[in-house]
Amino acid sequence: MSGSDDNVSDPNSVPTSVPGEFSIIENLFAPLAGEGAFALQDDAALFTPTPGQQLVLTKDAIAEGRHYLAGDPPGDVARKLLRVNLSDLAAKGATPRGYLLSCAWSETTSYEWMAAFAAGLAADQKQFGVELLGGDTIKAAGPSVFSLTAIGDVAAGKMVLRSGARPGDDLWVTGTIGDGALGLLAARGELDFLSASDKDYLVQRYRVPEPPVSFGKELSGLASAALDVSDGLLGDLGHLCRSSEVGAKIRQESIPVSSATNACVVTRPDRWAPILSGGDDYQILFAAPVAKREAISSTAVSTGTTVTRIGELTVDAKIAVLDAAGKPVDVSSTGFTHF
Amino acid sequence: MSGSDDNVSDPNSVPTSVPGEFSIIENLFAPLAGEGAFALQDDAALFTPTPGQQLVLTKDAIAEGRHYLAGDPPGDVARKLLRVNLSDLAAKGATPRGYLLSCAWSETTSYEWMAAFAAGLAADQKQFGVELLGGDTIKAAGPSVFSLTAIGDVAAGKMVLRSGARPGDDLWVTGTIGDGALGLLAARGELDFLSASDKDYLVQRYRVPEPPVSFGKELSGLASAALDVSDGLLGDLGHLCRSSEVGAKIRQESIPVSSATNACVVTRPDRWAPILSGGDDYQILFAAPVAKREAISSTAVSTGTTVTRIGELTVDAKIAVLDAAGKPVDVSSTGFTHF
Repeated sequence: MSGSDDNVSDPNSVPTSVPGEFSIIENLFAPLAGEGAFALQDDAALFTPTPGQQLVLTKDAIAEGRHYLAGDPPGDVARKLLRVNLSDLAAKGATPRGYLLSCAWSETTSYEWMAAFAAGLAADQKQFGVELLGGDTIKAAGPSVFSLTAIGDVAAGKMVLRSGARPGDDLWVTGTIGDGALGLLAARGELDFLSASDKDYLVQRYRVPEPPVSFGKELSGLASAALDVSDGLLGDLGHLCRSSEVGAKIRQESIPVSSATNACVVTRPDRWAPILSGGDDYQILFAAPVAKREAISSTAVSTGTTVTRIGELTVDAKIAVLDAAGKPVDVSSTGFTHF
Repeated sequence: MSGSDDNVSDPNSVPTSVPGEFSIIENLFAPLAGEGAFALQDDAALFTPTPGQQLVLTKDAIAEGRHYLAGDPPGDVARKLLRVNLSDLAAKGATPRGYLLSCAWSETTSYEWMAAFAAGLAADQKQFGVELLGGDTIKAAGPSVFSLTAIGDVAAGKMVLRSGARPGDDLWVTGTIGDGALGLLAARGELDFLSASDKDYLVQRYRVPEPPVSFGKELSGLASAALDVSDGLLGDLGHLCRSSEVGAKIRQESIPVSSATNACVVTRPDRWAPILSGGDDYQILFAAPVAKREAISSTAVSTGTTVTRIGELTVDAKIAVLDAAGKPVDVSSTGFTHF
């Protein structure tokens, strides 16, 4: 990790205003550093691959005013940044190993904000078993931008791709779908007909997604294809189908939703649109042979993950959403256009 | 590589204004993608480590209005971003293998700017033998911020650290020192007493550094400690000395400077300050046992690199800069305070 705006550091000082970059690194980020990170005191990190493993690499960024608001809790911002990347690793069947972080702080970011951001990372490092390897901290000329590179590993040849699904495979999702997109609407005050606890639940799901990291570690023995649901269920299903050269039929009533989301669509059936195509779920959408049903269910139990079969893949390169009577739902109003 | 603002892509379209994120990825960045990047069409990249090698990881960011100006050539911005990271790998003795890129574009970034940015990367990929593995492209709410994670490898146990230097070791630098810092002053119009060609040379060195990547690949057999000169020669020497628990004596007249920098200090001796402590050189400062002198010189020749011996390391934990008569130069005016 390196800083470039300030060459003065004093490990014994108690920062009052915003200290220089080296102090930020030493006080806030060095305590997060893992093996090979040299306490963030060298130019680069050293990473020792495990023999027989390949590495899975992903890098996602978030921007203030785009992916979070300046008033959001800083620890939640940090955790979302880490988790959207862990979500990609989980969907590829990888076990997270570490991450590098780049922080471009806005001029108005306080030291307290940075400290709460780092505390959010510390909590998630414990939860997910990852460590900070390195990165950079700079000042942006405008609102903050953060970028994170996550590194996972997987047995050689076992990374789960978007391609690889076959007609007849089951289609599954982990967790619940729609909470992230409805959480954004709730945060914007557009779901005020819901109870306070339902709104709070949805907003928190938007701010801090729950990627199924433990289940993801077991995915390579189960799934024929997978990706994380970040662009929206139908959009991401489109990606999987296009890469695998298949189509899909899904049953709308099979899509797993939380009780808060259910309360929303009971009152406002038009709110199915953000569930189907809203994004920000950070769950895994995966295809698997029918023969894997039992193994999938028992892995879900052993990893404390909910999994739901929502449909199947077809030869015909179309995506159909069916209602309870088996009739196609018109999804043109959901913004889903690209398959 | 993933985009999140636009789900529509048409590979046959000719973009006129700024297209969506998926189109930017498909048209501008997919052509840069290397093996394991799945043409940037999957959630993550697959990287196969070479048996017996460890990985060296670094991540540096640059921000518009901080590290470059909106009017700078976009290809130069991209090349600087890549090169400041390759500089870190070179200083650790690593061979660059690939990189991940995160672009947070400002609202006003045009497609032409993005295309020229990608063209700069394409040119440097050829020059340095690296490929794009993945990343993210988003919209920032303010000025652009870019972040890059570079991955290199090195024989197990052979990464060159900041620690490891011993009293009596020679102190070397590659290339020339001071061009970057003076180039920034020249770009700001503060060196108008120089000839146009000297100014142009310095500005270009600031915009596009020349990290000694070929020499860096051979460094692990030669150096006892090293880092890249990014914070300033004296500041970075301080880092090396602190990590290695040694001091240093350097001879000011031995510091290698370009003819443009020499023309500058001949007229304005006070311009030694940015040479000694200005930063942005992206050359390697390294320590090596006296017995390695011949091997270092022949490696410099075989890799087309200039190396210069500028002093030696001492037991006494101080840094002294000596003039031609062997007397200490007062460096307190250079802003160098932190050792």
